[in-house]
This record gives sequence, C-alpha cells and structure tokens, in this order.
Amino acid sequence: MTAPSMPRDTEAYARGLALFERLHGGHSGAGLATSRDELCPDFLTMTMEWAFAGVLDRPGLDLVTREFVIIACCVTRGYLPQLRAHIEAALVAGATREQIVEVIVQTQFYASGAAANNALGVAAEVFGLQA
Amino acid sequence: MTAPSMPRDTEAYARGLALFERLHGGHSGAGLATSRDELCPDFLTMTMEWAFAGVLDRPGLDLVTREFVIIACCVTRGYLPQLRAHIEAALVAGATREQIVEVIVQTQFYASGAAANNALGVAAEVFGLQA
Amino acid sequence: MTAPSMPRDTEAYARGLALFERLHGGHSGAGLATSRDELCPDFLTMTMEWAFAGVLDRPGLDLVTREFVIIACCVTRGYLPQLRAHIEAALVAGATREQIVEVIVQTQFYASGAAANNALGVAAEVFGLQA
Amino acid sequence: MTAPSMPRDTEAYARGLALFERLHGGHSGAGLATSRDELCPDFLTMTMEWAFAGVLDRPGLDLVTREFVIIACCVTRGYLPQLRAHIEAALVAGATREQIVEVIVQTQFYASGAAANNALGVAAEVFGLQA
Amino acid sequence: MTAPSMPRDTEAYARGLALFERLHGGHSGAGLATSRDELCPDFLTMTMEWAFAGVLDRPGLDLVTREFVIIACCVTRGYLPQLRAHIEAALVAGATREQIVEVIVQTQFYASGAAANNALGVAAEVFGLQA
Amino acid sequence: MTAPSMPRDTEAYARGLALFERLHGGHSGAGLATSRDELCPDFLTMTMEWAFAGVLDRPGLDLVTREFVIIACCVTRGYLPQLRAHIEAALVAGATREQIVEVIVQTQFYASGAAANNALGVAAEVFGLQA
Repeated sequence: MTAPSMPRDTEAYARGLALFERLHGGHSGAGLATSRDELCPDFLTMTMEWAFAGVLDRPGLDLVTREFVIIACCVTRGYLPQLRAHIEAALVAGATREQIVEVIVQTQFYASGAAANNALGVAAEVFGLQA
Repeated sequence: MTAPSMPRDTEAYARGLALFERLHGGHSGAGLATSRDELCPDFLTMTMEWAFAGVLDRPGLDLVTREFVIIACCVTRGYLPQLRAHIEAALVAGATREQIVEVIVQTQFYASGAAANNALGVAAEVFGLQA
Repeated sequence: MTAPSMPRDTEAYARGLALFERLHGGHSGAGLATSRDELCPDFLTMTMEWAFAGVLDRPGLDLVTREFVIIACCVTRGYLPQLRAHIEAALVAGATREQIVEVIVQTQFYASGAAANNALGVAAEVFGLQA
Repeated sequence: MTAPSMPRDTEAYARGLALFERLHGGHSGAGLATSRDELCPDFLTMTMEWAFAGVLDRPGLDLVTREFVIIACCVTRGYLPQLRAHIEAALVAGATREQIVEVIVQTQFYASGAAANNALGVAAEVFGLQA
Repeated sequence: MTAPSMPRDTEAYARGLALFERLHGGHSGAGLATSRDELCPDFLTMTMEWAFAGVLDRPGLDLVTREFVIIACCVTRGYLPQLRAHIEAALVAGATREQIVEVIVQTQFYASGAAANNALGVAAEVFGLQA
Repeated sequence: MTAPSMPRDTEAYARGLALFERLHGGHSGAGLATSRDELCPDFLTMTMEWAFAGVLDRPGLDLVTREFVIIACCVTRGYLPQLRAHIEAALVAGATREQIVEVIVQTQFYASGAAANNALGVAAEVFGLQA
C-alpha cells in the first residue's frame, strides 16, 4: 500500500526480527505484527528495529521483567490483543504462570480493578482455563 | 469529614502500615497518603489493608518487580505524584537508578513516547538531576 | 492456578457475595466474576470483600447512585463488559431505563461523545433494542 | 482570535448561561469557562448551549446526580480543574460533602485507587482541609 | 425509549444529516449512528446538530484535515468502530489511503505504538487487505 | 546516569536534530527534550532518530498536518507540556492560530469537551492571551 522507505538489510532489523520470532513465533503476536507488512512495510521495520532491537533487547533489565512492564502497560491501556501476545512472550522468556497472575493482580490499584479483571480473562484464555 | 467505619486494630492494617512506612516514610508518598486521614479515614485504612497488606505484600513476586509494575502503570496513566512516590519506593526496595530508567524506557511503545518522556522528567527530579 | 491465601469464612466475604448475587446473579456479570475462581481465587475473594462489601455496601450514598457512578466510570474507560453488568445491576437496584440513558448522555462532554455512543449501544443490547 | 459564528441571542444560550452562573458563579469553574471567550467565543457558546442547556438541564435525572456522574468522569480521566469546579457545583446543587467523598471512594475499582486518591486531594482543597 | 425533546425541523439538523449521509451513508458509520434512534432519539439529534453541523461543518479547516484529527483522536482512545467509520469518511472526503496510513503512523509516539498497530489493522480491513 | 549505547554520528540523528531545532529551538519543547540527556542519553537519541527523522520527516503527509495529528493526540491524552511544544511547532511549520484553534475544537466529541477546554487554555497561553 505505502512504498517502503526503510532498508531491512541492517543489523538492527535482523536482531529485532530474531528476538520477535523467539518470543512470538507460533503465537498470536506473530500474525499481529506481520499482517502489517502489506499495508505499511515501514511500520513492521520500525517495530523490529525500534521496539524489539532498540528497546526490548537493551541491557540493564532482564527480558522477563521487560515483559512484565509491557504487560502492566497493556493491562492499563486495555490493549487485549497485545496483552495476549506478551503473556505468551513472558512464558517463552521464562516467566511462570503464577508470576504473570501476580503482575496482573498488582496492577489493580493503578490500572483499576476492572482492568485487572479483564486482563485475568485474557490470561485464563492463554493458559487454557475458563475465561 | 466522613466518619470512620473500618477498625484499625487489625493485623492487616498494622502490616500494611509497616510496609507503607518502610517504602514511603520520609518521602513524598508519605504525605500523599496520610493527608487523606482528615477527609476520609476509611480511604487510608483501605489503602493500608488492601493495597499494601493485601496486594503489595503478597508472595509470588518480589517487591522490586511489584514496584516496577506500579511504575509502568503510573507512567501509562500519567499519575505523576504517584510515579514519584513509587520511584522512591523502588529505590528503598533495592532497585537501581539504571533499572528504573530502563523500566520507563521500556514503556514507550505501549504507554507512548510522550508518557515515557514525562516520566523520565520525574525520575530526574527524584535523582536530583536537571528535570 | 495460584494458591488461595485469603480465607472466605469472613463476614465481609459473605456480605459481599450476597450483594454480588443480588445484583449480578443470573446476569452477565455473574460469569464475569466467578470465572476468575479457577485462575486466581484470591482475586475473586478481593472482589467480594473489597469492591462489594467494602465499598459498594458502604453507607452514605444509595445503591442506585453508586451504580450510576460505576456506569460513568465504565463509559469513560470503555469497559464494555463491565458496563453491561452494571447496567443490569442498576436495573436490579431500582433504576429506570430512562435514568440509565440519561446517565450515559450526561457523560458525553467529559468521557466523550464517542464513548457515550458506544455505551448507548451496550444499553440498547441490555434493553433488547437494536444495538 | 477566531471570529464568532454562533448567535448568542437564543433561548438555549440564555438558559445555559443562567445554569452555568448558578452552579459556577464565584467559583473556580467560572474563570475556567469564560477565559475561553477571547480565544474562541464559539467554544463558550457551545459550552452554554450544548453542555449546560442541552445536556445538564435535561429532565429525567436530577441535577445532583448529574453532577455526580460528571465528577465520576473527571476522576476517571484525571481532569483535576474540572473536578474542582464540579465538586463546587455539586455543593451548590445541594449535595453534601459526605456524598461527594462517597462518590469518589466508589470510583476506585473502575477509575483506579490512584485516581480516587488524587481526587480526594482536590476535594480536601475545596473543603478547606489539608490536601 | 426516552421521549424526544429536541425538534428536528431545524436548519442545523438538516445540514448535519446531509453531511452525515455524504460521509457515512452506505458505510459502517451509518448504522452506528442511526441505531441510537430507538433508544434515545435526542442523542441522534445532538450528533447531527452539534457534532456534524456545529463542529465538523465549521469553516477554518478543510474536511479532510478535520477527519485526520478525528482519526488521531480515535486511534488514541482506541475507539475502533468510530475509527473504521472515519477512515471511510476520510476517503469519501478525498483523502488517499497513503495519507491515512501516514496519519496513523504519525500517532505512534503520542498515542503509542500499540495503538497505531491496532489502528493499522482497522485500516487494512477497510482497504480490503489482510488485517 | 545510564551509559549511552547508541551512536550519534548517524545521518538519521543529524537530520532528526535539525528538524527538532527548526521546530522547537527557542521554544518550550527544546528544554523538554534536551534535559533528558543527563539522565538517559539514549532516550534523546531515540527521540531524534525515531520520532523526528524516522516519523515526522517521512514523506506522504505535510509537516503542518503531522503537527495537527500530534496536537490531536496530545489533547486526547492530556499531555499539556507536549501540547504546548507542538502548538509552537505547528506555528513554526506554517499553521495559523485559527487552524490550531479549529483542530482543538474538532477534538471535542472524541477526546471530550473537557480535554478540548483544557487544550484551549494552553493555546491561549502560547498566543499570549488570557488562559
């Protein structure tokens, strides 16, 4: 749809894509991102270079904690498709189901109890429980 | 202003207040909470029993990670006074300044870059840097 | 999933559950809350003890007005499943359909016209009208 | 700044302005609205005709309940200047301080505990208590 | 449901309805608005007189730019049904698909990358691409 | 505070910084961004490379319209310092005061009337009028 203007033969793109595939490959987030390629390929390039290689792959904070931060943001904003993708990613990165539940429970006085309740429903779906 | 209806001679209140004083005593959050006592003492009781003893003191996730979750929520909602209080609390709980900065930087694609920027301004103030 | 740590043989739990069942029993909110029991039983306990017994059952404001406040919050945040549940609860508590519509119309300059419009769609569904 | 395009010699403008002056005259909301007159007089006209005469003055819900709905919206969005103005307006309309505190306390599981806490600070200021 | 109190034989209603039908007739937004007529006819009247005739039809900014402003608001708040309707309206008003994609891409550091990503999914649906 | 890990001798950084200085140099946004340099120099690098060179400088939409999109986002989220900076930037880019006022007025049914009102206050300050 829009012509691509950003090159993809960069170290950052390759590194971001590898992290993306490690965390989201085979899960719901994979389609969420790659389907943007037809509409706006640069947005997918930005996502890999900036969000994955540029931020998520930074030193100074471990990957599980970074996923918990993302989960807290998604609970707060009500981004339920992204929340699902990052609960899956947190599990891939080594988080336990119990920790993920505690992250969501912890959000309740800042994101709101209703936001935490809706997020627990998404977690239940990912875990194969009654949502 | 409103008459208190909740007792304060409970184990939960004492435990919540102790955690509150450990994390916020002498910092900006202390006044934020206790000033509610004149207007609505039950709200302060709820804060100690529920938010501190009931949620923040739960097992299953360490205190530093819980503070990072709270910081992510406060960045996302734009609660700047609470953000300041929880940056201070995270430091008391053992987080480093670098970790707190990385938590805020990590929020930028979910809370927004503008929200992260405003939050870094609060962190700079807490750290005694140019805000 | 997560082990329960909160007892349920308390006066507050029983009182909260009774109010919950009075307001949401047989409606959409019932499933919304109880489905959390498998994933995180403590979250359900917190909901009954804190949100229902601890806040909604407080004196000083009648139940219908409290439901209107909740509806206004849900319209503003866009929590549509909770909005549906609390429109049902407001009817149980004695509110008229006309009052509920006026509450939603009143939110439009503060929550936004778009939020009010989406909320009227939920109200229409609850009332059995064209949504 | 922008040229006015809406007439002010209408029944709706007069009725809206009268309701505005009854509720906000001499309080913080008065300046909040009238200062828009220099920049964009039509916005002030819209406020009087639409928000005040067209919505707030509608039948079907009493004025105090309408102000509680507005307060709940302002707590949820974090509109602190408007919150102050509508706490003042609710008092003028006949609400008690205790009811206003209960409205704010009721928002905590839907707007968030942090939002309720910040709103109680505004209420304390309006009531002349320690904020 | 609620009795209508606003007349519809006004110049503003006719002008707003004509603009509404020009922009949304035959698209998703048409049903979104008119379905409110059974529940609260005044809300539909307000929408035509205020939002369409009173604001969208104002001079001083061209219609395409006004639709871009609305799209930016809907991306930011996450109003996906309205976003779809206003992407359709922007196309009717003369915007290109490329411009609409750029508007959404531009929101990413202020609304958040996740909000922009969700909005691109809606745009892809409207454009008949893989969402 | 945090060690820089991103190089600044790139074409993107130079181009982003030049656009930043053109739009914000000498205005409130200048300090807003550069004060981040002491705390987290990489965040400033990201801002210049990603937000300015990578997005704001893209083809396909003129700079004034991009600033209007940003203003709409900032009104909606309530980011008042950024709103001020981007009203200044829109003026530098060639927008008129009247257009900026119309952008803000247009947001009122999607961001909310209260958000538009607060934003007009910021515009009045920038324009040297009574806020």
